Amino acid sequence: MDQYCIGVDVGGTSVKFGLFSGEGDLLERWSIRTRTAEKGKYILGDIAESIASKMEEKNLRRNNLIGIGIGIPGPTQSDGYVEVCVNLGWEDLNPAKELQALLGVPVFAGNDANVAALGEMWKGGGEGYRDVVLFTLGTGVGGGVILDGKILAGHRGLAGELGHITVNPDEPEACNCGNHGCLEQYASATGVARVAAKILRESSKDSALRGLRRFSAKDVFDAAKKGDELSLQAVEVLGKYLGRVCATVALTVDPDVFVIGGGVSKAGPILTDVISKYYKFYTPLTEKKVPVVLAELGNDAGIYGAARMALDH
Amino acid sequence: MDQYCIGVDVGGTSVKFGLFSGEGDLLERWSIRTRTAEKGKYILGDIAESIASKMEEKNLRRNNLIGIGIGIPGPTQSDGYVEVCVNLGWEDLNPAKELQALLGVPVFAGNDANVAALGEMWKGGGEGYRDVVLFTLGTGVGGGVILDGKILAGHRGLAGELGHITVNPDEPEACNCGNHGCLEQYASATGVARVAAKILRESSKDSALRGLRRFSAKDVFDAAKKGDELSLQAVEVLGKYLGRVCATVALTVDPDVFVIGGGVSKAGPILTDVISKYYKFYTPLTEKKVPVVLAELGNDAGIYGAARMALDH
Repeated sequence: MDQYCIGVDVGGTSVKFGLFSGEGDLLERWSIRTRTAEKGKYILGDIAESIASKMEEKNLRRNNLIGIGIGIPGPTQSDGYVEVCVNLGWEDLNPAKELQALLGVPVFAGNDANVAALGEMWKGGGEGYRDVVLFTLGTGVGGGVILDGKILAGHRGLAGELGHITVNPDEPEACNCGNHGCLEQYASATGVARVAAKILRESSKDSALRGLRRFSAKDVFDAAKKGDELSLQAVEVLGKYLGRVCATVALTVDPDVFVIGGGVSKAGPILTDVISKYYKFYTPLTEKKVPVVLAELGNDAGIYGAARMALDH
Repeated sequence: MDQYCIGVDVGGTSVKFGLFSGEGDLLERWSIRTRTAEKGKYILGDIAESIASKMEEKNLRRNNLIGIGIGIPGPTQSDGYVEVCVNLGWEDLNPAKELQALLGVPVFAGNDANVAALGEMWKGGGEGYRDVVLFTLGTGVGGGVILDGKILAGHRGLAGELGHITVNPDEPEACNCGNHGCLEQYASATGVARVAAKILRESSKDSALRGLRRFSAKDVFDAAKKGDELSLQAVEVLGKYLGRVCATVALTVDPDVFVIGGGVSKAGPILTDVISKYYKFYTPLTEKKVPVVLAELGNDAGIYGAARMALDH
């Protein structure tokens, strides 16, 4: 009998699904809208219905499914328990248990960034490694820590919340979390544009960015690649703070590899080079540095990691 | 047949031993000098001899010993391999395997600060917890990370090197490691005295410390407890940097508890209070903070942790 598993990545606007073979090949992906109305009470039912209809379409029975993995956009404990998930409206819920009750198939849950890190370890930028730290540089900055091939969830599901590490306590502007000087304020897409805008305001030098009415992180990196001095300064700011966090994380959990994903990572090697430069600078203690590489799975990292969670159990 | 185990804590000047019952009670402790001459080639032989004569004294045979744990003052991989141990002169050595060959008893090795953290989890300030982070504030600052009751050694044996996390890149003075602004420069015994001396130089205010020709971290804390303003400033500096590292570590591995040990921790609650204050300040992300407590085993943490390593295998 053929064996399959399903990886689910729950986001604030859509839920992504991947059907995988038992060998871990992605056979098909699909998605539905996330109904966050009424404290997200319809989300798990919608997911169960979507999976049930896909199983019908493919003529799959319950015993064809090894299991289902699900990534949640908020702190998730290792037993799947979610105390609060602001993005979905959930409170005091175990989505893994609920979904398992609805479908009669084993379900395993983790925080979405942690799950994405597992995906990148399995089939992405971290392939071949067992101790992987992922930074996801998107609208915000997410993080995931994989130790010995397994997600580190942490005592309260907060492990790998690397975007909210304080890197500059003197920052006058507040982060969304209320703190000042979180990594996210310099290394997210919005952060890169914010930093560049500040550099432009404080300098009288010319810059390609001055010709744009509004600019994004991509614009900053594109200009930096062409040698635009002020854009390069913004890139250095990102590298300095993210590289220092890599150094700090290396001295805490000592991983094999750092993987950089999210929209900002489309900038390519200019990004990993500048992070790597500062990571090395801040760890003189050891000669041996681990690589800083680009993520490879893009938006599929979540469904890959979720599938891997199911296969590992 | 009665069962025992032995915990060994190798330091740069002495090797401490503890004989434990199979139930984990410390029955006897003793120590020998560390012979670091000739690249530390005599150390393991001396340890084996000392254990063998203790076994003879106690009428113990090999099969009375469950195993031996040994803490090494340098990066130690999870299989016991030590690439370089500057303090002992060792290079490219597996002390666990060598000692096992000499004594015919299972031997397990770990970094001394990690092993001490395991000891504090077992019978000290971290008792009752499974995810423990220890800071040892002595001449330098050591650290140890215990996850799910086990030492996290890290890919290169560097996990838990928390004293060399950069907390102030603008620091003009260099740390022993070559970096600038390591936690160790503010939170070690020498660091506290250094910071206080700097505060005294830069202020014209009166201070009890000014009456002393030389002063130690203990003098600084004693004065601070009596309300000495400049001494309190030095304590705040320690709290700010160590509290921020606790916040960073919490967002990386999310432990149950932080344990503060080493000579500086004799200062007592004034120390854990100031660390806790800043740790909470730098983690607005979550309402739930974990406790910051004092270590309880003093110099015995190493032999306790080493014994626990042997009992766990």
